[in-house]
Amino acid sequence: MSENNNLSVSAAQACVLGFAETDGSEEIPLERALGRVLAEDVRANRDQPPYDVSAMDGFAVRSADLATGGVLLTVIEDIKAGDLPKKTVASGQCARIMTGAPVPPGADAVIRVEDTRMLTDDSVEITVPVKAGNDIRVRGENMRHGDVVLHAGTEITPGVIGLLATVKRARVNVHRRPRVAILSSGDELEALEAPFDADKIPESNSHALMAQLQALGIEPVRLGIARDDPAELAGFLRQGLDYDVLLVSGGSSVGVHDHVRPTLEALGVAMHFWRVEMKPGHPLAFGTRGGTLVFGLPGNPVSSMVCFEQFVLPALRRRMGHPALFRRTVTATLAHPLKHRPGRMEFIRVTLATEANGRLRATSTGAQSSGDLCSMARADGLLVVPAESGNLAAGDLVQVQLLDGSLYQRTAGFVEEAA
Amino acid sequence: MSENNNLSVSAAQACVLGFAETDGSEEIPLERALGRVLAEDVRANRDQPPYDVSAMDGFAVRSADLATGGVLLTVIEDIKAGDLPKKTVASGQCARIMTGAPVPPGADAVIRVEDTRMLTDDSVEITVPVKAGNDIRVRGENMRHGDVVLHAGTEITPGVIGLLATVKRARVNVHRRPRVAILSSGDELEALEAPFDADKIPESNSHALMAQLQALGIEPVRLGIARDDPAELAGFLRQGLDYDVLLVSGGSSVGVHDHVRPTLEALGVAMHFWRVEMKPGHPLAFGTRGGTLVFGLPGNPVSSMVCFEQFVLPALRRRMGHPALFRRTVTATLAHPLKHRPGRMEFIRVTLATEANGRLRATSTGAQSSGDLCSMARADGLLVVPAESGNLAAGDLVQVQLLDGSLYQRTAGFVEEAA
Repeated sequence: MSENNNLSVSAAQACVLGFAETDGSEEIPLERALGRVLAEDVRANRDQPPYDVSAMDGFAVRSADLATGGVLLTVIEDIKAGDLPKKTVASGQCARIMTGAPVPPGADAVIRVEDTRMLTDDSVEITVPVKAGNDIRVRGENMRHGDVVLHAGTEITPGVIGLLATVKRARVNVHRRPRVAILSSGDELEALEAPFDADKIPESNSHALMAQLQALGIEPVRLGIARDDPAELAGFLRQGLDYDVLLVSGGSSVGVHDHVRPTLEALGVAMHFWRVEMKPGHPLAFGTRGGTLVFGLPGNPVSSMVCFEQFVLPALRRRMGHPALFRRTVTATLAHPLKHRPGRMEFIRVTLATEANGRLRATSTGAQSSGDLCSMARADGLLVVPAESGNLAAGDLVQVQLLDGSLYQRTAGFVEEAA
Repeated sequence: MSENNNLSVSAAQACVLGFAETDGSEEIPLERALGRVLAEDVRANRDQPPYDVSAMDGFAVRSADLATGGVLLTVIEDIKAGDLPKKTVASGQCARIMTGAPVPPGADAVIRVEDTRMLTDDSVEITVPVKAGNDIRVRGENMRHGDVVLHAGTEITPGVIGLLATVKRARVNVHRRPRVAILSSGDELEALEAPFDADKIPESNSHALMAQLQALGIEPVRLGIARDDPAELAGFLRQGLDYDVLLVSGGSSVGVHDHVRPTLEALGVAMHFWRVEMKPGHPLAFGTRGGTLVFGLPGNPVSSMVCFEQFVLPALRRRMGHPALFRRTVTATLAHPLKHRPGRMEFIRVTLATEANGRLRATSTGAQSSGDLCSMARADGLLVVPAESGNLAAGDLVQVQLLDGSLYQRTAGFVEEAA
């Protein structure tokens, strides 16, 4: 074994990301673009707003008329959004105006309806003074024709979708998503669709991995379960290497029955490492053939998921052009002591609760057996114990990676009163 | 106007949630279940593990043989995952065993391969003592046949998918997703597919709302743009009321051109409130007809999105059976002062960065005009300023709601060293 064995988590991440480049781009309709990443700069196709518009429902006035309060003005016109004003506002006059409607010539300010009192149908009392420009959104205030409003590399969130619609982009150029294949391996595994066999272990890793990929917007292909037969395994791996990313679940331990690594090497895959100093997830292999990334994930269900989070996820996000590659980490207060012997970085499944002071509190899901998916099913996040850390005490501040599903909480998390 | 005008954000949320009940359930295949919510308890279909298995690659031994270190044992069998052991381990003997393989009769502990040294093909030196039970995962340790392993109301994350596959559930019973329609209204609006018109305002709200719904797993129907014509509007609203949830964008202000509210009332919708003490998003209307929820969202693009986040999102999540209804909030340090006059709760668009101490730092995206989607497109979150708060100072701790896309960050957020 070479010095590439037993990398730290950071070194292994750096190694993987060194081989992950963005895939090509494609044009897709706006309504399918959520979660994708722009592969082009996007420019404004006009000034926004296209003319001076009212920011309020109220009255367009001449500010000079309102040096004092309690002024009576004659309403000469009704302007709603979508109308073009027909008249010019002269001294002593005003126009009723709606939010988003064009400010008529002559007027230089808007008074919101709450600061006025209708006397008759065409006479209004203005109760406050006003400065020029009040409650007017000026032409081009948000964007000017030709400005770059979105840069290549921007993740397409709902706000970005709104902005793309504003500049009339019904189709956008985005980074491609990699094609991903999942292969499970092991004689002991019973497929989901196979009949019950008391001596077998149900195969769950390919399903959990599929869901982890779906959460990233990728629809993977599950190749099936390769039995511990070199020829069958080679056939499956050859198929998998036609994809951009191949995830092999199980079969990558140091044990004598491990065919996966030598078979991958025989198929031309350069293996870059096969162990990472972490818990769970020790036996993790990574190799490449051309642009194809191959991950040999541990067979233990929790180890498989945790390794996906730390290595596969950032690599896939880089390939899809995302600038933010890693899970969001938040600071939380540890609810109880945690034993840790310096050596490996450890990822502890935790639930998060919000304390009265707004701080997050992290509590272990209990048993941290790497075979126990129950704990992973309950977890909001992964508490990261640095490799060289000693034991942790209740009340220590810790870093927690947020997992899928943790973007929501049970209470609103805010109150009307000041903190 | 009644006392239902001008509710606080919390009171308006409570009002909306009081009308939101879970929809029915449906059975779907596991590979489409990510993000859904279980509508049934799920039980284990066997013990997990199904028999005592090795937690390591190593040797199955009799612990009594290893009272002292440096013991030589004869290897009588090779057991890999999926095999059934054929022999009984007697004193002085052991079996080579792989992770997940059944522990053979006679053996009561496993020694990992790292603590052994092969002398010949069938002779191994064990270098450490061992206790009975070492590195054995006991039958039923993770779950026992018949145990409820997942409760109704559980959100289906990748970990839950793995667990469902473990108990062989190829199909699951989940809460339905509501059918949602979006209607835009206003003469000034130019549809995305319509030709460019310099006097019009591009319609973006329905696209942003669609993306917000898609982020919740809902594929909405966009009904189109209703012009400011009572008959046309009534026709569209009638259509929209056939859905479970109807979002009406624009047209819900206090202005004289507002047809939406009276038209909804004429169609039998009971209006519960039409203003909320918040910024942005003041003119927000909510009504119901039977089980249908109707939201009149503000026409300003940012107000529309922020109101969706605070009111529509929790209502939809409750209908879909989610126990966690609200956006995750995190504590951050404010990067700069923020002016705030007590009165309305305010939602400030901010970006988040992770400081060296792991704490999040919130910085305003700049201009907070409710018409400026650029700021929403850049935001990681919404800083919540409590209604009764005064000005905030740089360094103050604030609560930030995480928006879509903020589940990822640019750096890993952890280091190998202890904190």
